[in-house]
Amino acid sequence: MVRRNDERRAALVDGAIEVLAREGARGLTFRAVDAEAGVPAGTASNYFANRDDLLTQAGARVYERLQPDEATVARQRASTRDRETYAALMRELVGRISDFRTGYLALLELRLEATRRPQLRKVLTEQVRADLWANVAYHEESGLPGDATAVQLLYLTLNWLIVEQLTLPDVLSEAERERLVTAAVERLTTSLPHPG
Amino acid sequence: MVRRNDERRAALVDGAIEVLAREGARGLTFRAVDAEAGVPAGTASNYFANRDDLLTQAGARVYERLQPDEATVARQRASTRDRETYAALMRELVGRISDFRTGYLALLELRLEATRRPQLRKVLTEQVRADLWANVAYHEESGLPGDATAVQLLYLTLNWLIVEQLTLPDVLSEAERERLVTAAVERLTTSLPHPG
Repeated sequence: MVRRNDERRAALVDGAIEVLAREGARGLTFRAVDAEAGVPAGTASNYFANRDDLLTQAGARVYERLQPDEATVARQRASTRDRETYAALMRELVGRISDFRTGYLALLELRLEATRRPQLRKVLTEQVRADLWANVAYHEESGLPGDATAVQLLYLTLNWLIVEQLTLPDVLSEAERERLVTAAVERLTTSLPHPG
Repeated sequence: MVRRNDERRAALVDGAIEVLAREGARGLTFRAVDAEAGVPAGTASNYFANRDDLLTQAGARVYERLQPDEATVARQRASTRDRETYAALMRELVGRISDFRTGYLALLELRLEATRRPQLRKVLTEQVRADLWANVAYHEESGLPGDATAVQLLYLTLNWLIVEQLTLPDVLSEAERERLVTAAVERLTTSLPHPG
């Protein structure tokens, strides 16, 4: 039987995120997670059915930890609905994701591991689809400028911007990255009727 | 002394790319590369000074193999200079990169390994910067629509589109991906003077 101890489970999943980021997917073993979480060897195997279970829970936990807190959501909902605000929100989003460096690196490791593990690919696909469409729905409800295509294109653009920042931080300077986020919002939220 | 045998060296570097994509950076050993290239154990260690040397040569080789052939470049240079052509070129580029699936996955593994290896990070940073600025220069010379910012933003957008396609191919359908490439070119190459 899987034991009920939500706090310990969360500590193990958080430990798995750190191990993924530091050692890569191949370094993620139950033993390494036990050591990272500072619990007796053999603990993780009581909490997760198998390695796929641990990997998918780590992915879900990254998304959970990346959610903005209530104060941030309230402040965002109270702000004006123009491009400048949207660009500021996106710079804030990039900052929040980049600050959880190990979480984002763990997600990249999971994506690469998903090319080798069909069950993981299936679960991650559902997570990413759900997240992407939640972003589109949240945006449409918000009244911010731009259509669903703009949200999807921003999702693509900002993800690679974060990859760049976290893996090769000197390819673009911080000022260049900020300028690119602003330009992406300005251009992508503007749909032109077939310019000549 | 490093032995001179360019053909065998290329076979070993190509083998390293396959091992990186299949096993991840942690699976990349001289022994695994020897086995992948079908050469006697101990061969790779005669061709590469150390593991960083092998990793950086693998990265450079992916960029080399992704270069378009002369016929493609000639055809591109002869085409018209409008947004439709640009979008078609970008769909073609995404197709060419995605077709070298193991090469692109190897680059992602190298980026993650670069977070752990400062020397690799330094060399990859130079490669990626050089590639990005070559793209900007090639574009400015081509007469295609859009400024340097558009080229940089397309670089970001299309990279994550390819990550999506290669790691979680069912998040977006092929038709959605094609539509997004076209929309990205249309919107990003249009710079508006501060819309109200």
